[in-house]
Amino acid sequence: MEIEFLGTGAGVPAKHRNVTSIALKLLDERNKIWLFDCGEGTQMQILRTTIKPRKIEKIFITHLHGDHIFGLPGLLSSRSFQGGSESLDIYGPKGVEEFVKTSLRISRSRLGYKINFYEVTDGLIFEDHQFTVIAKKLDHGIDSFGYRVVEKDHPGELQVDKLLEMAISPGPIFGKLKRGERVTLSDGRVLDGNDFLGEARKGRIVTILGDTRYCPQSIELAENADVLVHESTFNKKESNMAKDYFHSTTHQAAEVAKKANVQKLVLTHISARYLAKEASELEQEAKEIFPNSQLVKDFDQLIVSFR
Amino acid sequence: MEIEFLGTGAGVPAKHRNVTSIALKLLDERNKIWLFDCGEGTQMQILRTTIKPRKIEKIFITHLHGDHIFGLPGLLSSRSFQGGSESLDIYGPKGVEEFVKTSLRISRSRLGYKINFYEVTDGLIFEDHQFTVIAKKLDHGIDSFGYRVVEKDHPGELQVDKLLEMAISPGPIFGKLKRGERVTLSDGRVLDGNDFLGEARKGRIVTILGDTRYCPQSIELAENADVLVHESTFNKKESNMAKDYFHSTTHQAAEVAKKANVQKLVLTHISARYLAKEASELEQEAKEIFPNSQLVKDFDQLIVSFR
Repeated sequence: MEIEFLGTGAGVPAKHRNVTSIALKLLDERNKIWLFDCGEGTQMQILRTTIKPRKIEKIFITHLHGDHIFGLPGLLSSRSFQGGSESLDIYGPKGVEEFVKTSLRISRSRLGYKINFYEVTDGLIFEDHQFTVIAKKLDHGIDSFGYRVVEKDHPGELQVDKLLEMAISPGPIFGKLKRGERVTLSDGRVLDGNDFLGEARKGRIVTILGDTRYCPQSIELAENADVLVHESTFNKKESNMAKDYFHSTTHQAAEVAKKANVQKLVLTHISARYLAKEASELEQEAKEIFPNSQLVKDFDQLIVSFR
Repeated sequence: MEIEFLGTGAGVPAKHRNVTSIALKLLDERNKIWLFDCGEGTQMQILRTTIKPRKIEKIFITHLHGDHIFGLPGLLSSRSFQGGSESLDIYGPKGVEEFVKTSLRISRSRLGYKINFYEVTDGLIFEDHQFTVIAKKLDHGIDSFGYRVVEKDHPGELQVDKLLEMAISPGPIFGKLKRGERVTLSDGRVLDGNDFLGEARKGRIVTILGDTRYCPQSIELAENADVLVHESTFNKKESNMAKDYFHSTTHQAAEVAKKANVQKLVLTHISARYLAKEASELEQEAKEIFPNSQLVKDFDQLIVSFR
């Protein structure tokens, strides 16, 4: 599980920060990519990475502002052109479907795969054997969602070698042992499944928020997350600006991280007003409140490790 | 009058060729830019030039394929964000208006200027004291237009210094002389306006075509043009592919240039299948038929001189 930042700017593109898109790379887990937002030029950014558009399985849109959606029609078309044939799920506020369908219809783009649209509301929006995704509406003037991606816990693997060494042959009892049950063998030996299981690993949690003011929903979504990706449009002195424009300051993002007890805070959605040096000051500001903060730039990658 | 190529690729963006957009820079003439097509990422390309989005006065869309229009919503939004307040004219086939309006409505983008939409049909689509623009439908499966931009002839300037040296004072007769009339002065001298006019300059002609197969309309639009910008999606051997996909080969583009008697042919809309070396072979192929051919890459600039 890795996160690659395809665009870390705010509002309008700058020379070295494109508008928002974040790839959650689940290559080890399911050989798929999940994309969060898709600002204009996302497909061009992807050309400079190892990401294959056909591996994009789901796209989660946080909100409908142009710097978060205008790259959708182009990316969807190119995914088809480059041989993508598996269906794609798009989650987002009401309006994404109309925007995508209108763009594709007017441009006469025919896709070689199906798109499933899911209109997001608060609560569980996806679940399978590996992951759940929970959404909550934040505070951004228009509907803007945060997403909490929770990996299911990995049970310990059955230590088959150990059983074979004890001359126990594969069969139904392997299943019982794997479930942690006690088993009595025909020779009278009693085995406890727990003695033959490797270490269980707690699933990881990644929380990616849309644009927002400081709000309690952010803290709920980020609770105990391994990584929280939070916007940081303004520096700590500009809390009035942040409030007026429905955005957050460095200190507000760090407050959320601290209160939610996350492992790591990632700051993105950096305004073009901050040049390189000033951007590193933003990181310092966040660290005053939450030490494990990192401000990212385009193409930064982050491995989300097991604890 | 200069032409700057913002995107010279075909269909999908490649690392070093973005999708189509061409800037006709009329800075000396009217301190404005006219844009032809606006593929995704055009506003990012513009960041790497000296072009100011607020100076974009008109956008001519050749056709509605995504690689020619998906950059419109982002560019229009950024033009507003960057202080553009003067109205903007968009010319194109039916559908541009719906695409733009839907995108802006769904993204809640409010522009600080007015857009005038003009649905293009064959014939004269714009005229003022400096320029006329003529459109013609080409052959591309869907409606695809070519545009012929004709600068009006520059009459010779009145040589005021010469008149002052002859002790002739400014007044109504200056106007008459400028119009080339004969004037009798009160002292009996007779002046011929033509003796006091500098050299007249023929207006320049730039023809920019949308995607198309070889067709007679291209030749009509390009007749005696100073510069013809023509797509060249395929090499000379792939005329069957060109026909099937409604595109042109190098040789077909050069045939148009030759038959239309243009000064210079510019090849663009180059498929990502052609790498740098092969792209230079495309230029060679065109030169076999029309020697003054140039294949352009992103950010190439071309001065359109008076003859």
